[in-house]
Amino acid sequence: MVDISALAKKSSAGSGGSRPWQLAESVLSGTRDVHRLADFHRWFADLGQRFYTEVDRIPLPGLSGWRLDPGTGNLGHDNGRFFTVEGLEVRVPGGPVERWSQPIINQPEIGILGILVKRFGGVLHFLMQAKVEPGNHNGLQLSPTVQATRSNYTRAHHGKPVPYLDYFLRSARHGVLTDVRQSEQGSWFYRKRNRNVVLEVTEEVEVLDGFCWLTLGQLHSLLTAGDLVNMDSRTVLSCLPFSGAGLLEAFAPAGDDFRASVIRSCSEDEGSRHSTVDILSWITEVRTHSEVHTRLVPLAGLAGWRRTDDAITHENGRFFEVIGVRVRAGGREVGEWTQPMIRAYRTGVVAFLVKRVDGVLHALVHARLEPGYLDVAELAPTVQCVPENYDHLPTAARPRFLDEVLTAPEDRIRFDATLSEEGGRFYHARNRYLVVETDEDRELDHPDFRWLPLHQLVHLLRHSHYVNIQARSLVACLHSLTAPPPAS
Amino acid sequence: MVDISALAKKSSAGSGGSRPWQLAESVLSGTRDVHRLADFHRWFADLGQRFYTEVDRIPLPGLSGWRLDPGTGNLGHDNGRFFTVEGLEVRVPGGPVERWSQPIINQPEIGILGILVKRFGGVLHFLMQAKVEPGNHNGLQLSPTVQATRSNYTRAHHGKPVPYLDYFLRSARHGVLTDVRQSEQGSWFYRKRNRNVVLEVTEEVEVLDGFCWLTLGQLHSLLTAGDLVNMDSRTVLSCLPFSGAGLLEAFAPAGDDFRASVIRSCSEDEGSRHSTVDILSWITEVRTHSEVHTRLVPLAGLAGWRRTDDAITHENGRFFEVIGVRVRAGGREVGEWTQPMIRAYRTGVVAFLVKRVDGVLHALVHARLEPGYLDVAELAPTVQCVPENYDHLPTAARPRFLDEVLTAPEDRIRFDATLSEEGGRFYHARNRYLVVETDEDRELDHPDFRWLPLHQLVHLLRHSHYVNIQARSLVACLHSLTAPPPAS
Repeated sequence: MVDISALAKKSSAGSGGSRPWQLAESVLSGTRDVHRLADFHRWFADLGQRFYTEVDRIPLPGLSGWRLDPGTGNLGHDNGRFFTVEGLEVRVPGGPVERWSQPIINQPEIGILGILVKRFGGVLHFLMQAKVEPGNHNGLQLSPTVQATRSNYTRAHHGKPVPYLDYFLRSARHGVLTDVRQSEQGSWFYRKRNRNVVLEVTEEVEVLDGFCWLTLGQLHSLLTAGDLVNMDSRTVLSCLPFSGAGLLEAFAPAGDDFRASVIRSCSEDEGSRHSTVDILSWITEVRTHSEVHTRLVPLAGLAGWRRTDDAITHENGRFFEVIGVRVRAGGREVGEWTQPMIRAYRTGVVAFLVKRVDGVLHALVHARLEPGYLDVAELAPTVQCVPENYDHLPTAARPRFLDEVLTAPEDRIRFDATLSEEGGRFYHARNRYLVVETDEDRELDHPDFRWLPLHQLVHLLRHSHYVNIQARSLVACLHSLTAPPPAS
Repeated sequence: MVDISALAKKSSAGSGGSRPWQLAESVLSGTRDVHRLADFHRWFADLGQRFYTEVDRIPLPGLSGWRLDPGTGNLGHDNGRFFTVEGLEVRVPGGPVERWSQPIINQPEIGILGILVKRFGGVLHFLMQAKVEPGNHNGLQLSPTVQATRSNYTRAHHGKPVPYLDYFLRSARHGVLTDVRQSEQGSWFYRKRNRNVVLEVTEEVEVLDGFCWLTLGQLHSLLTAGDLVNMDSRTVLSCLPFSGAGLLEAFAPAGDDFRASVIRSCSEDEGSRHSTVDILSWITEVRTHSEVHTRLVPLAGLAGWRRTDDAITHENGRFFEVIGVRVRAGGREVGEWTQPMIRAYRTGVVAFLVKRVDGVLHALVHARLEPGYLDVAELAPTVQCVPENYDHLPTAARPRFLDEVLTAPEDRIRFDATLSEEGGRFYHARNRYLVVETDEDRELDHPDFRWLPLHQLVHLLRHSHYVNIQARSLVACLHSLTAPPPAS
């Protein structure tokens, strides 16, 4: 086993205090990295032997500690905390489907997704956690330093204290790089938000078992590996102030290749297809003219859904189901519990069409309505769907751009990795994340789509309710295209 | 009668096309103004004779076209549009009052508050409307070019078309200076938002009876007159991109007087007590840790409130009451109708404490919870209350800073005018708006308050849900302190 915490401590001597936020060195991994990627992989494989969960499906009535409310049929925990599974009635006048009902997770608590960063030898490193979650199809993934619901950190679990949590409960004492509540899946969560925080610390940080310091360049490299950097890590990384002249200077993109266009796309000094005031006006327009009416209703008797002991399923067998699981965890978080989860039937497709505009990469963003959003619509990837859900519908009903993305020639595919969604609530939910380049002269005049460079998305990510969770994952993936993979 | 529309047409010949947004000329009114203020006042007095409403209180059962829902007791229009008066149950764990119930206006439609601007002789002018509203205690006030609910502009009133509305329904064809949905009174409205829009046009604009072009300097001068620039105008003006080096150059504030500190406060190049990321982190913290639970409930049987034919009142006689009125309108919008309104008993106090920090004016902003906000808390004035509502409570329960504001020496009062709130829903609701300067060394360490310069507030005003309606009025008032009153 590689003792990387000892390595980290050694490097810490070179830590340089509070200099301005410098991204480029951390993106360009190299000789000053605390660990080589090969060491990371050995360490991670070793942890995979020690930390694990065994997850078995069980009948819904077998959930212990959970109860079906006799009046509403809603699923909730005996202690009234964590989350409930309820029914939602949705009405979207003028939408492709004007009315539907569905189960939805109601989790009003705001959790913390926090990453500690620290300079070693002048290079920013991110403290990541190797964490198993019951919904992960492959067990261990890389999560933020802290990934805690309020029930976690107020100890409703009666579990062990959350490591490193104190930094985030007293964040104002450290260098806050970002601190913003962001939404999660609006089709499965009702108005859920988590707090995305990145703190820079200068003091000595003890590296506990299961944690390690990685550079942005290393994280970017691991992103492309697929199913390794978890959803919570991706959303926090997407909220970083990933911009600035430092990046342009360090990379000095002179040519007109794809990578140069990504780097320019990160810089606020570069142009954009639309001014920010026009983008904000477009979002205002969509949110003013779109109506999404939602109402929480009893899960019992929900139109179009049926409940058996095995699961709550849609009558046509599509979309997703609510199941029960028993989890036995070994390693750091020992224990056994049961819980309901949402199980996706198929792997989805999440894709940005991108193009260069005067040498600056722009992504085609979709203003998308989802019933769980607090504020009507958020900016989403060009394509975000499970293709099989449209198999029974006429071609005209297929999501715009889906077929273009699925049939793109290989040399146009700039990013392609299958990544997991949240493993605490979703069972084996995965999406294929794609970035597909299209021609510069590709025009588009659709009221729900706009071309945006990365720096405009990053600007919006300083605020809540603008960029959805899938687009945030893709922003992190796009940032990974700024630099070549690090030597490992 | 002064024919100011003819004057405007004459001046229009000097209009200069699409140059960059230049604020300073419009703030410094002078010889290039379309009208002198003295002419405006004659024109406005003349309109006051021709446009009027007669408003009489009537018993609630006498409201025609409105009905009490037999099940809920909610007040709604027969056609199901406009707005309803419902009950709201509020729970704020840890707040000064932890639970209460109240009537609230539910108006989910998003209306348009829009001002057209145009250059005459190089100077930006704002097209304002002299408009009577039933709740105005003095009849006529200055409103935006367009002030229309969705029911207005989709013609649910079966009234005349809304003048100039087409500009705002196709705003992307013009120069959008601002376009953002902003909240209104969170204690009287349930999640109401209006769209605040300012469009710059270059084409010839016909000036209809009751409309006139005014510079920002003139509007600022009229703000200080009290009860003339209405609430909707103030919120739209507050959302202007009121900043930039142009302002600093034009005014060249060299000295260290109060006005110089206001002008510097508008410039993003000047410093601020806290960085924007720290301010955003503070807002995230307040919104994460504060809980405001609300639930719409039937108005009938609302705890603590009683209904007579005359009104719905609180059992202790405080706060506000729901009344019925009959309106007879003459002038431009002829007609007769009845409607419910909210009547405030007393004039409130809305005040910013301000201080200079290194020569830059900062306002003391309060992160305030109101039950009608979509997102927990918004930034509010230092003081916002009706003092008499606290008379029966112990001194410790009085709003923080209220007494300091009410007893400030005259030379510390930098702005003082009584202004009206929305006259379409509120009956004679007025607040005394104050800006009170305090010492530079005045420190404050309270988790719900922060010192912000104007440019940080203006930056946040590009987005929804940050700055409340009362603070927006004060932002407009503070901007009026950048320049001396225009010669009239």
